[in-house]
Amino acid sequence: MARIVKKFGGTSVGDMDRIRNVAKRVAKSVEDGNEVAVVVSAMSGVTNQLIGYCQDAATFHDAREYDAVVAAGEQITAGLLAIALQDLGVPARSFMGWQIPLRTDGIHGAARIEEIAPDALEACFKEGRVAVVAGFQGIAGDNRITTLGRGGSDTSAVALAASVSADRCDIYTDVDGVYTTDPRIVPKARKLDKITFEEMLEMASLGAKVLQTRSVALAMKYGVRTQVLSSFEDLPGTLVVGEEEIVEQEVVSGIAYSRGEAKVTIVGLEDSPGKVSGVFSPLAKHNVNVDMIVQSASEDGTATDVTFTVPEDDLQKTVKVLEDNRGSLGFKDLVYNGNVVKVSVVGLGMRSHAGVASKMFDTLADKGINIQVISTSEIKVSVVIDAEYSELAVRALHTAYGLDRQD
Amino acid sequence: MARIVKKFGGTSVGDMDRIRNVAKRVAKSVEDGNEVAVVVSAMSGVTNQLIGYCQDAATFHDAREYDAVVAAGEQITAGLLAIALQDLGVPARSFMGWQIPLRTDGIHGAARIEEIAPDALEACFKEGRVAVVAGFQGIAGDNRITTLGRGGSDTSAVALAASVSADRCDIYTDVDGVYTTDPRIVPKARKLDKITFEEMLEMASLGAKVLQTRSVALAMKYGVRTQVLSSFEDLPGTLVVGEEEIVEQEVVSGIAYSRGEAKVTIVGLEDSPGKVSGVFSPLAKHNVNVDMIVQSASEDGTATDVTFTVPEDDLQKTVKVLEDNRGSLGFKDLVYNGNVVKVSVVGLGMRSHAGVASKMFDTLADKGINIQVISTSEIKVSVVIDAEYSELAVRALHTAYGLDRQD
Repeated sequence: MARIVKKFGGTSVGDMDRIRNVAKRVAKSVEDGNEVAVVVSAMSGVTNQLIGYCQDAATFHDAREYDAVVAAGEQITAGLLAIALQDLGVPARSFMGWQIPLRTDGIHGAARIEEIAPDALEACFKEGRVAVVAGFQGIAGDNRITTLGRGGSDTSAVALAASVSADRCDIYTDVDGVYTTDPRIVPKARKLDKITFEEMLEMASLGAKVLQTRSVALAMKYGVRTQVLSSFEDLPGTLVVGEEEIVEQEVVSGIAYSRGEAKVTIVGLEDSPGKVSGVFSPLAKHNVNVDMIVQSASEDGTATDVTFTVPEDDLQKTVKVLEDNRGSLGFKDLVYNGNVVKVSVVGLGMRSHAGVASKMFDTLADKGINIQVISTSEIKVSVVIDAEYSELAVRALHTAYGLDRQD
Repeated sequence: MARIVKKFGGTSVGDMDRIRNVAKRVAKSVEDGNEVAVVVSAMSGVTNQLIGYCQDAATFHDAREYDAVVAAGEQITAGLLAIALQDLGVPARSFMGWQIPLRTDGIHGAARIEEIAPDALEACFKEGRVAVVAGFQGIAGDNRITTLGRGGSDTSAVALAASVSADRCDIYTDVDGVYTTDPRIVPKARKLDKITFEEMLEMASLGAKVLQTRSVALAMKYGVRTQVLSSFEDLPGTLVVGEEEIVEQEVVSGIAYSRGEAKVTIVGLEDSPGKVSGVFSPLAKHNVNVDMIVQSASEDGTATDVTFTVPEDDLQKTVKVLEDNRGSLGFKDLVYNGNVVKVSVVGLGMRSHAGVASKMFDTLADKGINIQVISTSEIKVSVVIDAEYSELAVRALHTAYGLDRQD
């Protein structure tokens, strides 16, 4: 017997037939003797419809009212799934965020969870009843409905699992697990049985869109064993766990890539204290999310080149902000390129294993791929390359690190 | 300055353009210096869609979950109207039933209001803010969402008006007021400026579908002056008020009619104690709502005829129940007719005015209309006649009682 929180996203509950399928899967898990709570998203399309109404009502609208409107989507699914479960003879009841209560701060539209009372779920477990919780929503200190923003339902699920010390949080999605890389690019990509929180975090933030960074970070913080699995097939998925659960760590677990990046180089920036901060603080002020930053000294030591990446969508804004500040920054030239991709090699084992980075550089050099920026962390090496080499690079690296499926 | 609760039904908030129109009307009333709270229904079609989902989920479904699902409809409208008001520069915020809180009993799907805390609305009035309340919904003692059933939003509005001692409750609908009779039958029907609660109650329960009986009864109980008016035209409607506000009472205020009635006569029922109750208790057990009942003695005094009306939809069931009990009831014959209509003359003034009933009988006799059943109360006289004479009877009575518009 295990205590499990299961989360089903919008496509998994997209219509009544799918909601009935979800009910069957939950019923099966209950029959197996588990204590189960379920977190649901809005039926796919519903959230967008409700957001559309808000935008139609006023271009700039009160985020508190937006939250009240949008939270209705998850409310509907929660009630319907409870009905579908009861119809299968499984005792169930719905809970809205305010009924749990799942308390958040007052940042409407992107609220952060502050506290979850475990009582409602504990009572349901005790009564042998499935709690069906509306995901993505909570209640602020002033008793108003909040929503958690992007990835909110995953975050609800992980946080609820933490609040009742669940044995596992199952995130049902439209992929069946976490792969060594994107199977659409590398047909020989393997599904991982297990991956650590740290690796998953790097994979997630690097563009492997399986789990939102935020929910992985929360799972890591509270040690919530989180499984990513398919809502349409009945197969085990990938378990995201603490390091201690993985006996033999892979040197490299996966190859991630992230499109939609742009590279900016500021050439000939005066090399004096405060100059670099003078570049990035106006960008931060304009909400440009700067990712990799590399600085290289100039030959004569009086000037420096600074290269960084930003989301491609922010490139125009970035260039404008820098040009607007050209006077005070005093740089020679601005070079930018929106047509790049970031490719990363991720693996916890590389902490104790030399040569991971050099194998990456060798492999790319062999294929004639020029590396434009390099950045490393404890468990990953990232490079920026020309976008046209994306697939070639990912495939070559996947093979080079021995990740190809053997069959 | 007045304190006004305004209620807008589903067609009045059917799409964003209509919600914007509602916002304009509310803004106008605020500009005029009034304290305004608004109660809204779900956008037309939304409630039926949500009910459809529940029925699809399971034929027999938990009323508590049904309530959670269906209440989402009003939640959406409340948030959208608050946004639309803010867009016009009118401070506004939404309230769900549980946020007020509007406390009800636990009869899900048809909950009755038990208590409304006035604090939320009072605070809004004080801050010069419009409270937009999701109608039709409340919260039960166990913290679960309830809905009030048929006519729920009107009832919410009247109850909220009572809770803050509002000067008036305006019910916006798709008709522009209460008429002396149905204008589709009598083009010379007049809109009434005022009508008493008692008369409105008779009109409502007799099939004038402007206000639900339940909300009128509540308005009468708490003396809430209630105006029925059009949500599409900017004209005064009909005020439903206490007797004391109407100086010169009309003898007859209106002619109501109710289709979909059926008449049943039990011929030759043994005239002994308990026999009549033997007829009606099995019908009550089968949820047949018996309306008019008339008993006439038989010629020889040993048997009696009992005639009563039931909703036409219940006629088959009624006949079956009576036939099933024929043995114990011991009647001679059963005569029934689904093709009848009830026509009523309603007026507070008839309490102090003789001759109202006889004028009705004379008028119908003049037109050759046979009266099948008669029933009277203090402020109304009802007759059952053959359905084909409906319009003729209503028109003749409207003229006979001097109700035709003079223009």
